Amino acid sequence: MKKFMAEFIGTMWLVLGGCGSAVLAAAFPELGIGFVGVALAFGLTVLTMAYAIGHVSGCHLNPAVSIGLWVGGRFGKKDVLPYIVAQVLGGIAGAGILYLIASGKPESELGSFAANGYGEHSPGGYTLMAALVTEVVMTFMFIFIILGSTYPKAPAGLAGIAIGLCLTLVHLISIPVTNTSVNPARSTSQAIFVGGWALEQLWLFWVAPIAGAILAGLVYQFISPNEQTETVKQ
Amino acid sequence: MKKFMAEFIGTMWLVLGGCGSAVLAAAFPELGIGFVGVALAFGLTVLTMAYAIGHVSGCHLNPAVSIGLWVGGRFGKKDVLPYIVAQVLGGIAGAGILYLIASGKPESELGSFAANGYGEHSPGGYTLMAALVTEVVMTFMFIFIILGSTYPKAPAGLAGIAIGLCLTLVHLISIPVTNTSVNPARSTSQAIFVGGWALEQLWLFWVAPIAGAILAGLVYQFISPNEQTETVKQ
Amino acid sequence: MKKFMAEFIGTMWLVLGGCGSAVLAAAFPELGIGFVGVALAFGLTVLTMAYAIGHVSGCHLNPAVSIGLWVGGRFGKKDVLPYIVAQVLGGIAGAGILYLIASGKPESELGSFAANGYGEHSPGGYTLMAALVTEVVMTFMFIFIILGSTYPKAPAGLAGIAIGLCLTLVHLISIPVTNTSVNPARSTSQAIFVGGWALEQLWLFWVAPIAGAILAGLVYQFISPNEQTETVKQ
Amino acid sequence: MKKFMAEFIGTMWLVLGGCGSAVLAAAFPELGIGFVGVALAFGLTVLTMAYAIGHVSGCHLNPAVSIGLWVGGRFGKKDVLPYIVAQVLGGIAGAGILYLIASGKPESELGSFAANGYGEHSPGGYTLMAALVTEVVMTFMFIFIILGSTYPKAPAGLAGIAIGLCLTLVHLISIPVTNTSVNPARSTSQAIFVGGWALEQLWLFWVAPIAGAILAGLVYQFISPNEQTETVKQ
Repeated sequence: MKKFMAEFIGTMWLVLGGCGSAVLAAAFPELGIGFVGVALAFGLTVLTMAYAIGHVSGCHLNPAVSIGLWVGGRFGKKDVLPYIVAQVLGGIAGAGILYLIASGKPESELGSFAANGYGEHSPGGYTLMAALVTEVVMTFMFIFIILGSTYPKAPAGLAGIAIGLCLTLVHLISIPVTNTSVNPARSTSQAIFVGGWALEQLWLFWVAPIAGAILAGLVYQFISPNEQTETVKQ
Repeated sequence: MKKFMAEFIGTMWLVLGGCGSAVLAAAFPELGIGFVGVALAFGLTVLTMAYAIGHVSGCHLNPAVSIGLWVGGRFGKKDVLPYIVAQVLGGIAGAGILYLIASGKPESELGSFAANGYGEHSPGGYTLMAALVTEVVMTFMFIFIILGSTYPKAPAGLAGIAIGLCLTLVHLISIPVTNTSVNPARSTSQAIFVGGWALEQLWLFWVAPIAGAILAGLVYQFISPNEQTETVKQ
Repeated sequence: MKKFMAEFIGTMWLVLGGCGSAVLAAAFPELGIGFVGVALAFGLTVLTMAYAIGHVSGCHLNPAVSIGLWVGGRFGKKDVLPYIVAQVLGGIAGAGILYLIASGKPESELGSFAANGYGEHSPGGYTLMAALVTEVVMTFMFIFIILGSTYPKAPAGLAGIAIGLCLTLVHLISIPVTNTSVNPARSTSQAIFVGGWALEQLWLFWVAPIAGAILAGLVYQFISPNEQTETVKQ
Repeated sequence: MKKFMAEFIGTMWLVLGGCGSAVLAAAFPELGIGFVGVALAFGLTVLTMAYAIGHVSGCHLNPAVSIGLWVGGRFGKKDVLPYIVAQVLGGIAGAGILYLIASGKPESELGSFAANGYGEHSPGGYTLMAALVTEVVMTFMFIFIILGSTYPKAPAGLAGIAIGLCLTLVHLISIPVTNTSVNPARSTSQAIFVGGWALEQLWLFWVAPIAGAILAGLVYQFISPNEQTETVKQ
């Protein structure tokens, strides 16, 4: 129970911090944080939670991470679904708090919140195909780095820094393409508040990250299979 | 005595560094550091002091932190008040040095210094209610991450990085709403120099961070209560 | 075989992340990440991979690094060439993915991609001589820091942070001069897609980084030769 | 001998990286790195060198650091002067390389390079008194954090991160006031190339940092004197 509560709070923080920085601070006149600040914020939600709840739940905060770790043999099958439920609910809670704050600005229009999109809803107008490639590849690399940096032979304790800053890096590259998802819970949390096109395009931000995660779970085993000693018993 | 002196110097640095970067450098023409730079500066005051005085006083630098750690069973009751006094005095000392420097610019007008505010004194014009929610939630998350990353099972030595960068993250999200407090000592130090509205609104920046801190101290115990082995004897 | 695959994927990530952030996000209207974001992205590709594959291949991702480590006595001669081949192929794969994404923007013109250049192809119009000095010196310092931070007496596990952020630093200094290479595989990957002038100027981005790397391998031995206990047997 | 060579190369890197980023990249049209990028660059020169040569020379790179550590009982008297000589020469070498690169831009005017100044030569027009206070206080805090984070009870291996990012923080605050020195070797290296006013104002950037450093060495002993077990024998 504790680990599901940890995933709930952690994913709430990911959405509140990452999407919150985008909605509240990115485009503030003159002093706004821009994409660099948003990329930093997303990464720091994961970095901070990795140290706060890593010892409780493993700090996945993302259905694609839970699935990728399961495929890679690091996470038990029976917890995958409950983790995903906790992550989606936590993400929605984070979006709710953000909605409450953002609507406290008299002239606010929430517009597209921080929803993910492609085609005319891509920040830079990128096509569905470009969005699909981007989300598959970015999630693949993200999960690959999670698997590698939490491997028993990697320096202990530092994975939280590598993984958090990897999410920053993923955003530095791909915000212009899809507003960056690599996380179905994050995308769902925003689409629910935006409705319409965001819900219609939401499928891609489940399919592509999960495809990338499965691929990473499979490929990583070719990089360092023999020494895999900490496989989770299922 | 040493630990109170450490808290005094540490909080002086938090205010001089965080508020100083905002007052002196944020809006410098063309090359200014903006909210990203201010967020980084606040976080780095805590990160640097965590390593410099963490072994002396625990490096709270913030009444809400001391109260949250006390409620969470990590800090002895008898030191809470003296710590808060040292923090407020240190903050005022930092603001005094900053005032001395900032007034050394011939055409300077100190304006609102780096005071916290809501309504018409919120950088983005957010309401009292939005400000209240923001400060409670941000402080809750900040203290939650402090409690988690200093837990005995978390990687030793890295909490200073997680906690410092958490304060950066909190600022990346919420400067537009309240100019970000999460720290009554920081707010008080600025309000004293600004006077008027800043003193009138100061109550919120004591009430909300402390409420968030108490909540975090209580909630965290549901996440990892059984293994709590280092409770401070009181 | 695993280590070559690791170098392939790692260098793919370096190009996709570093050059990708430059091509896709640097100049996005108003919110773009600028040179700071690109510098951060390049550094984070190395930081993240250092923790993910450092224990597999050493995470060179750069022919100049492999050569510098060989000259410095840290890397076996027989693996130098295969590593370089894997790095160049990985870089080209990363550029290919980037090309696929970048061309998914209807009005996109790839222009100079993120190719390196001098003279009229230097971002700031710097001469061939300035470019040559810059690339030799920057690569020298980069390899020097790699040799020092992976030395047995340096703090274990933290080299990945120092080396990744060193690449960020190198970019903060030198993007205006050559668009920053210090890595022949990265330069080659872009020149192949740009053709023409980029291929004509490519020689400098092989010669200068390798010269800087050899120099670093030689000079470092004057700084800490006696205690060199982990020389690779050849 | 090795340690003097390490200090020479390290201080060369501090000037080339920190001042280099300011001269070459800070004000690049539209994409320039601004004060945030320069602050990051200065900090990263120290962070990277801390891991590369910390085990050789202690990585001072700054006469004020050597003097502060000596006053604080952490550094032997006999090495203070040779370290300072190596630092000043290294700084000048870094400035020479930077001059060579910067003058490779056809229309370049070096102007004030990255010299430190007050009054009309302060970036923001701050008075001599504001500059003096700033440099004394900033150096005091910098040396205080060095003394604290390298104390035997602080987490081993992480001081390089805290100290490097402290220099970033110092720059985030004070570039507008004096262009930030806290380091007489860095100031001297630039003043030599600029001449005139920069040489006339150079006294302040020796006097103030050294005064701050001595103060820090004295004050730190009140914070944690009893457990001081690693005092250097002289």
